[in-house]
Amino acid sequence: MKENKYDDAAFFAAYRQFPRSVDGLKAAGEWHDFQKLLPDFTNKRVLDVGCGFGWHCRYAADHGATSVLGIDLSEKMLQVAAEKTANPKISYQRLAMEEMNFPANCFDVVISSLAFHYTPDFQAVCQQLNHCLAPSGQFVFSVEHPVFTAEGHQDWFYDADGKPEYWPVDHYFQEGQRDAVFLGQHVTKYHRTLTTYLNTLLQTGFTITNIVEPTPPQELLASVPGMQDELRRPMMLLVAAQKIN
Amino acid sequence: MKENKYDDAAFFAAYRQFPRSVDGLKAAGEWHDFQKLLPDFTNKRVLDVGCGFGWHCRYAADHGATSVLGIDLSEKMLQVAAEKTANPKISYQRLAMEEMNFPANCFDVVISSLAFHYTPDFQAVCQQLNHCLAPSGQFVFSVEHPVFTAEGHQDWFYDADGKPEYWPVDHYFQEGQRDAVFLGQHVTKYHRTLTTYLNTLLQTGFTITNIVEPTPPQELLASVPGMQDELRRPMMLLVAAQKIN
Repeated sequence: MKENKYDDAAFFAAYRQFPRSVDGLKAAGEWHDFQKLLPDFTNKRVLDVGCGFGWHCRYAADHGATSVLGIDLSEKMLQVAAEKTANPKISYQRLAMEEMNFPANCFDVVISSLAFHYTPDFQAVCQQLNHCLAPSGQFVFSVEHPVFTAEGHQDWFYDADGKPEYWPVDHYFQEGQRDAVFLGQHVTKYHRTLTTYLNTLLQTGFTITNIVEPTPPQELLASVPGMQDELRRPMMLLVAAQKIN
Repeated sequence: MKENKYDDAAFFAAYRQFPRSVDGLKAAGEWHDFQKLLPDFTNKRVLDVGCGFGWHCRYAADHGATSVLGIDLSEKMLQVAAEKTANPKISYQRLAMEEMNFPANCFDVVISSLAFHYTPDFQAVCQQLNHCLAPSGQFVFSVEHPVFTAEGHQDWFYDADGKPEYWPVDHYFQEGQRDAVFLGQHVTKYHRTLTTYLNTLLQTGFTITNIVEPTPPQELLASVPGMQDELRRPMMLLVAAQKIN
């Protein structure tokens, strides 16, 4: 069974209340950086891996994509995605990323938001994505940053007053399963090093065109309590890559 | 005045006793990974930025380079480098990396080992190196990893028994000067994010061909006390890049 926490009723109920679940892309702290990495979608065939509620699918379709396929393992997520989607250019399919088996040259752009830290085999995913992309096809994704996933608890080390003292890094080169707590629930994630993320791309036929560790926009830094702590450690890694012809 | 701690008598005396200063490349924990990133030096014109005692210069010359120029800011380091060097293909020049001003197309390969965390302006250095490299010229370097430089003290957080409990990360997105303790001396280093290291390369005319966070070789992990801790956090970042024609 592939990791499918999002079909767990309690987790799904919590996730559904998450700001980015309610308000979509504009409530995602990394969106202003992720958006800049996205290519022109005009006349593009787009695949979204781990599409969740379909926010990125709708964005691509609204910006000129001719077709958008969103895949996700969670039936509950896809049900909400379908309810939120009226555009016939978008379709959804229940499919684990590990089981993708698309024909060659059937997509021009692949996007994926915060999904790859759920797979134990990033290399197999990259190989399949390289296969199904057209020559010079673009691949833009976000993952939780290796600094964020390494130790496992995904939380600060707090001082005696309960203030975040520093972000702990440990077990960095011990790749694999982590039992993280997210929205009060235990979730299995997979840590891998930066070397693995980036070199896997280079070794499966991509060139890297942009790398960003996003920081919150100025208005959030100024207005949201605790947001300044987001400048103390990287939480996400955004990568834009291109298939080598 | 550019950072020139290596001409401080006390620091130099300590550095000179450092294993890699005495025994050269084979005593450097990252050498087995760095070596794999190096190109074929046959008939190449090589520049080594921050050459120190000249170990990498001599390696390049021993492996077929037609000429090797090592630059360093430290007179004391260059004096030892000259004493250790008999090969007339190698020359040394006292020059801060910030003051490089080489003609276009005068080197085929640029290497740099653990020097760039001493410069406040990595972008200017990359621009100059791209300028002086021949088309498709190769650029291979190591730096202290952003996880290692972020917090500033470059030390573990210890538990009550004096054992390393976690590696602390803090101030990650606050780039700039750090007052680190190295060999018992205060040394000024510059922290920058992974985004800055890699995107600066992409933005100054390079493509990235390999990225490695080195780990100690198996024999050291098995035999040297405390070496297992090197698997708990990344200390260095090795990058191979190529000038885009």
